[in-house]
Amino acid sequence: MSEVTATARRPREARNGVNTPVLFATINAVKETPALAKFRFRASSRWIDGTYSESRVESFNGAGEEHTHQTQFGFAADHPAVLVGQDRGPTPIEFLLHGLAACITAGIANVAAARGVTLTSVESRVEGDIDLRGLLGISGDVRNGYERIRITFDIAGDAPPEKLREIVEQSRARSAVFDVLTNGVPVDVSINAG
Amino acid sequence: MSEVTATARRPREARNGVNTPVLFATINAVKETPALAKFRFRASSRWIDGTYSESRVESFNGAGEEHTHQTQFGFAADHPAVLVGQDRGPTPIEFLLHGLAACITAGIANVAAARGVTLTSVESRVEGDIDLRGLLGISGDVRNGYERIRITFDIAGDAPPEKLREIVEQSRARSAVFDVLTNGVPVDVSINAG
Repeated sequence: MSEVTATARRPREARNGVNTPVLFATINAVKETPALAKFRFRASSRWIDGTYSESRVESFNGAGEEHTHQTQFGFAADHPAVLVGQDRGPTPIEFLLHGLAACITAGIANVAAARGVTLTSVESRVEGDIDLRGLLGISGDVRNGYERIRITFDIAGDAPPEKLREIVEQSRARSAVFDVLTNGVPVDVSINAG
Repeated sequence: MSEVTATARRPREARNGVNTPVLFATINAVKETPALAKFRFRASSRWIDGTYSESRVESFNGAGEEHTHQTQFGFAADHPAVLVGQDRGPTPIEFLLHGLAACITAGIANVAAARGVTLTSVESRVEGDIDLRGLLGISGDVRNGYERIRITFDIAGDAPPEKLREIVEQSRARSAVFDVLTNGVPVDVSINAG
């Protein structure tokens, strides 16, 4: 029996805080019942004043039923003073950077656990370049959003550097946020005015 | 003198919590010195365990200098139990929904102030559909990220419904987050492993 086969047959134990057996059981359940894979995430937002608003992330639908987050998550967003706000929250576009880092990081822990690698540290820095002449309506040649995003991961664990790099790469290749940011997604806007 | 000309010449007062004179002064300053429009936003992230990570949004570069947010903003992200996490934060991809709602909402307040419209209420609901067979690696035909996002705005203020709708539409047309989500952006990933 080759080592590869032995590895494939040995059930992975929980590792990196990832319940690997449950992760594999979940993947198998979705394979058998694809409808379980359909999720709908939601947020609601309320304008307070100026560029300041507050959002709530409370519930989602998935695996065939409604779910309520165990905490009712709330987030603020604002513009800083240099962009004529009061800096009571990050700018909306900064949340994309957090989402990107968090998504690839969660995937790294999952992929490492699935491959039997124990991680000791994963840190990342992410930055996005934007030319505000677009959104300020000053130049039609400049886009409204980021022109480019860069993210750098520092990863350490009980595997050779090349294997650690492959784990990051595999997480990137399966990241939901990376996909949305790089490939875009249709967004429908509806308005009720009155 | 036509009404249009009179409107253009009358300086807008602060409205909706937007310091409209400063907003116009900022736009004019950027018109004269385009380099002021260059901004670089940042976040840093640290894996804690499982799918849980924490990000910080602390500083940015823009208008030719470094800026520190007046609060060191921190955000968690996790997966819920149904996705083999502990639900200690929203999922990373839910932050995209918050960012989208907050970005268009901030723009609505700015555009309304610029057009002399006083708003009484702006609320939105945003949802994203995702089929997890993509990111779970079960189907190569399913993308990793959202298949579609929908956002609905309820807006009220001292203008006719059609004018309120135009304000939302103008904000959407200039939204940085809407642009990134619908058109995508190049993302460079670097890895330091060891």
